[in-house]
Amino acid sequence: MTADRTTTGAGAPPASQRAVYFVSDGTGITAETLGGALLVNFPTVTFRRHTVPFVDTADGARDLVAAIDRSAADGLGPIVFTTVRTASVREELARSRAVLIDLLGGHLVELERALDTPSSDQLVPSHGVGDLERYFARMRAVEYAIEHDDGQSYRALDLADVVIIAPSRCGKTPTTMYLALQHGLLVANYPLTEDDFPSDDLPPAVAPYAARCFGLTTTPLRLSQVRHERRPHSQYASLAQCRLELRRAEDLYRRHRVPFLNSSTKSVEEMSAVILQSMRLRD
Amino acid sequence: MTADRTTTGAGAPPASQRAVYFVSDGTGITAETLGGALLVNFPTVTFRRHTVPFVDTADGARDLVAAIDRSAADGLGPIVFTTVRTASVREELARSRAVLIDLLGGHLVELERALDTPSSDQLVPSHGVGDLERYFARMRAVEYAIEHDDGQSYRALDLADVVIIAPSRCGKTPTTMYLALQHGLLVANYPLTEDDFPSDDLPPAVAPYAARCFGLTTTPLRLSQVRHERRPHSQYASLAQCRLELRRAEDLYRRHRVPFLNSSTKSVEEMSAVILQSMRLRD
Repeated sequence: MTADRTTTGAGAPPASQRAVYFVSDGTGITAETLGGALLVNFPTVTFRRHTVPFVDTADGARDLVAAIDRSAADGLGPIVFTTVRTASVREELARSRAVLIDLLGGHLVELERALDTPSSDQLVPSHGVGDLERYFARMRAVEYAIEHDDGQSYRALDLADVVIIAPSRCGKTPTTMYLALQHGLLVANYPLTEDDFPSDDLPPAVAPYAARCFGLTTTPLRLSQVRHERRPHSQYASLAQCRLELRRAEDLYRRHRVPFLNSSTKSVEEMSAVILQSMRLRD
Repeated sequence: MTADRTTTGAGAPPASQRAVYFVSDGTGITAETLGGALLVNFPTVTFRRHTVPFVDTADGARDLVAAIDRSAADGLGPIVFTTVRTASVREELARSRAVLIDLLGGHLVELERALDTPSSDQLVPSHGVGDLERYFARMRAVEYAIEHDDGQSYRALDLADVVIIAPSRCGKTPTTMYLALQHGLLVANYPLTEDDFPSDDLPPAVAPYAARCFGLTTTPLRLSQVRHERRPHSQYASLAQCRLELRRAEDLYRRHRVPFLNSSTKSVEEMSAVILQSMRLRD
């Protein structure tokens, strides 16, 4: 029922790991997101995480509580983050001997007070299907991103909300896909190669859309590591080559006032948030 | 600084909208996710949402508080969801006249008690870059998904964690991309076309991986709507054609014991959560 993930200290003996459960009557995404944001503040503790989505019956909850309480046997009490709203499930969870952290309940009360409105009794999924329009937008955006990945096609480049440009392996593709999937934006990406550098201009394919371009850079060392992963011990992956390409790319960004950021210390989520803000694209 | 999004009642006069701010010293993803999960419980209220990421200086916070308090002028007090941990920013936010809902603070105290450990003073980004290994895994997974989208390539189909099969337009591609990006899984997808249906077998390309196949279906009406979006008034989009293809696809899933789900009432996030659970792939 629950599959496991040990996030740190995979080699440590189980007794030193604290069991953590993210329990939801929906997808579990909210519980994982906020629970995860809380746990990072305890870097000295090793957690063993279990996500348990779709717990929407009392029977299911009873089985889960039994499993949770069994995992308490090693002496370190488990911690349960819950976003469950189903009353019967909440009642069962409350019987557990684990520490229960209710991520929604208290805040709902605060909100009811602020809005002077009771919350709905209906279970409203926060990651539910939503409207057909949003579904279309996401589907369209992901297909657009696939078609316009890595300069493979220029067919509808004029429709792009953003064109991400960077040397190979700076993180263009995952960032493109995140923006498409999470924000429904039309994002193309285009590789800067040695062919582009002798010129002081942006590559002809993207030059007409300079105002929508966003550049990525990274550190030569990081780029070299990532390229070694693809082509070990190649000229392409050499530190000298990486240093050269990054310097030329950054010169190009500056010359054409293309905003850019260094991806070496940023996650895909962070890069996406910076791009949204910089290009004024928050939807 | 903040771009705006009205989530419901876009045509309503501004006075009936309640301003909501998701404020973070990081990406804002946690604040948006939990704040959004709370707001869906008030379907009768119209919200005007503003996400304000990267507020990490007292000066930035002061400007923001001024903007928030100005938006209170229409009589409906704004609501601020915050995940900020930076002390100086928290102090400034506390001066706002808005209702402040602190999504982390209270739970951090609960966790400190449960773990008998103080939380770190360091600001630890919950959507930060993480380790290089995870970065590689995501990049690899997204590239794998692009290469193996829609049956375009079988090169590394033997490495797939999941092969999603379905008739055209049932939601294969966005679900594939979500699993790749959020979970680093190698996911291929393969379209079931009329050519595949005369046979009782799975298509030869995916038959060797039957145990890793997961099927999607939908309702004929929904499929017809989605196909009309791509090719209006075509045979391909006709209700009769959609009904036929879905019936045959479901027969195929049942015959080969391929688990499947109906995507018509599910978001990409929900489908992904079901697939992870069904295929025991939670990482």
